Amino acid sequence: MGATQHTEMTLFDVPERAVPEGPLVRVRLTVAYDGTDFHGFAANPGVRTVAGTLAEAIERILRHQIQIVCAGRTDKGVHAQGQVISFDAAQSRLDPVALVRALNMLCGPTIAVRDPLIVSPEFDARHSARARRYRYTVLNRPEPDPFLARIAWQVKSPLELSAMRLACDPLYGEHDFASFCRRPKGGGDGPPPSLVRRVIDARWHDLGDGRLRFDIAASSFCQQMVRSIVGTMIDVGSGKRRAGEVAAMIAAGDRSAAGQIAPPHGLCLWEVDYG
Amino acid sequence: MGATQHTEMTLFDVPERAVPEGPLVRVRLTVAYDGTDFHGFAANPGVRTVAGTLAEAIERILRHQIQIVCAGRTDKGVHAQGQVISFDAAQSRLDPVALVRALNMLCGPTIAVRDPLIVSPEFDARHSARARRYRYTVLNRPEPDPFLARIAWQVKSPLELSAMRLACDPLYGEHDFASFCRRPKGGGDGPPPSLVRRVIDARWHDLGDGRLRFDIAASSFCQQMVRSIVGTMIDVGSGKRRAGEVAAMIAAGDRSAAGQIAPPHGLCLWEVDYG
Repeated sequence: MGATQHTEMTLFDVPERAVPEGPLVRVRLTVAYDGTDFHGFAANPGVRTVAGTLAEAIERILRHQIQIVCAGRTDKGVHAQGQVISFDAAQSRLDPVALVRALNMLCGPTIAVRDPLIVSPEFDARHSARARRYRYTVLNRPEPDPFLARIAWQVKSPLELSAMRLACDPLYGEHDFASFCRRPKGGGDGPPPSLVRRVIDARWHDLGDGRLRFDIAASSFCQQMVRSIVGTMIDVGSGKRRAGEVAAMIAAGDRSAAGQIAPPHGLCLWEVDYG
Repeated sequence: MGATQHTEMTLFDVPERAVPEGPLVRVRLTVAYDGTDFHGFAANPGVRTVAGTLAEAIERILRHQIQIVCAGRTDKGVHAQGQVISFDAAQSRLDPVALVRALNMLCGPTIAVRDPLIVSPEFDARHSARARRYRYTVLNRPEPDPFLARIAWQVKSPLELSAMRLACDPLYGEHDFASFCRRPKGGGDGPPPSLVRRVIDARWHDLGDGRLRFDIAASSFCQQMVRSIVGTMIDVGSGKRRAGEVAAMIAAGDRSAAGQIAPPHGLCLWEVDYG
């Protein structure tokens, strides 16, 4: 009756995770997740992360080790509707439709995967991406909304949306966003990584009932960039800063020049463009 | 330093809940809640309920006992967007705007109150209501949606919406819904309570991406009525029952004639009509 008497492997018996054997294929998946209960996307031993949860499930299904690459490493508490990941799978083990079904059974409903694609070996979820789009939701009214509590930042005092819209203009184009980014951790003796990013869209939408949505698309984003921009815009909307100051904040190239950092739970990685 | 040395009362010091003194006014509030973590609306000692949570907060604020009457006693796990409650408050203690602000601070964001009204003493949230509208959300696709997991019932196999729409027709009008209701608990020697209800609207809406919404309005509903109707409709949509059988199910007047009961988390008390 002991478990050791069973020799047939089931989905959950993974005594070791071997390196994949035989020809490899590169797999692309689109992933949505409610980030509330995750310590961010990137795998991190000892804490529950989206990549850690996905990798463990994929390795159980394929029975070999994988390395996940993602389009955007979202922070703790940030959500995704259209995160994209890529990894290599042993061709002999891969049935894309069955993989998605099994992954949704193992990881759903908090994480949901869709649109499995076998892609060229040159495809890389991070480096092949031409642009990322994020959405940030603000609930601007005194009463909370129980159904938005996990995905929107409630700002109780009235915001002046016209000023927040004006504040979008200086963001467009290529800038060094050092004022709006967490300073990258130093590593090695090389030059610090560039914080130059190209913003191609930045707009506030009024969805009614106090719901405001900020849509921003850029070539890529540095860490905390969207949340720093949104926090500054809320400062503008509530009269603590003026829209006319934003260009100077960017030019300052210094974190202390910008405003507050918006909380993570209002943020969602909406979609990734691969051209 | 002992707490007993303080004589001034704060919001949280409620040594006893007195009966209200002086003239009373009847208060009406609209309430939204995420029912996930509540054991239903009705107060029930020892478990967390919406009415229990609200009553405790209102009694703290007004510093006297109250009795909450509601438009619809939603079951464990059921949500509300537009629940309505009424209760009597001592006129001398009542500032409706401050009450709403304090209640949202004490009970939000899981419970949110809005639209405070001083109403006629004849108003009763339950008996004055002419109609209630409920919404039920179904996610009909193989992949889960992390952002609908708390508020929609996922049905993975494809549903035939046209059959489910046909199944709505026999619901309209006045019927004894004994086949679609939990048998009321016996009490006293009187006749059992009537299960006759008048349905004035019953429609399925296709919201895209697999999201289906069932809207139903009636004079009032008996317990588990919407969930029993939705469960039966899903049986029709998945081919286990035929739309043509629904009229006979109603006529049978017997619980075993109807189909499965849909889970509570897809259901939301949407609005209450007082004419």
